[in-house]
Amino acid sequence: MRALLLVAHGSRREASNDEVRQLAARLEEQAGETFGYVTCAFLELASPSIPDGIECCIRQGATRVEVLPFFLSAGRHVIKDVPDEVAVKQAEHPDIEINIAPYLGSSAGITGLLLDLV
Amino acid sequence: MRALLLVAHGSRREASNDEVRQLAARLEEQAGETFGYVTCAFLELASPSIPDGIECCIRQGATRVEVLPFFLSAGRHVIKDVPDEVAVKQAEHPDIEINIAPYLGSSAGITGLLLDLV
Repeated sequence: MRALLLVAHGSRREASNDEVRQLAARLEEQAGETFGYVTCAFLELASPSIPDGIECCIRQGATRVEVLPFFLSAGRHVIKDVPDEVAVKQAEHPDIEINIAPYLGSSAGITGLLLDLV
Repeated sequence: MRALLLVAHGSRREASNDEVRQLAARLEEQAGETFGYVTCAFLELASPSIPDGIECCIRQGATRVEVLPFFLSAGRHVIKDVPDEVAVKQAEHPDIEINIAPYLGSSAGITGLLLDLV
């Protein structure tokens, strides 16, 4: 089974974290049968952590986990912090395939989305 | 003339600010004749500021400025800081129509964009 883990920064403002949780729920609806399980995790300031989120996917039966960084730019979080946390879990679970997808801000389609807002 | 001002948080990492500037350039290409001028501004840590960005649009001949918040969640920056800076310039230029568009994270299309990344 293939799981999708949306990874956000996390905020002291719980409503922002809830926005991410609601987005993960919408992703699950829209993903159809592509992913057997969709959830979210946070780099800091909110729960679950990235390792706990990956663990949760594996416990749900995932043999592949796609980590999807919900970040706008390729800063330290995207380049180092998220990969570091993923690497720890990958070492613990060598039999599970864990991939990190490109971050949201790198999507070519973002211009169309922005223009639709104005 | 209608101008588009993409507003991002701004980063100490100049490469992240350059990503925003490149995105504004791509928006300008893609916008066609909808906007006569497209540029970007930053809430903090980078230049130009939001007031300077709005001023620049007006000097280019804009009579309408669409401020587009490049933010993922409705935190304090989206709810208060960006509107406060826009309000100051609106008071200085009552003859110019300055609108704030919904922030990127509120876009219904973001789920499709995310799923395309994995």
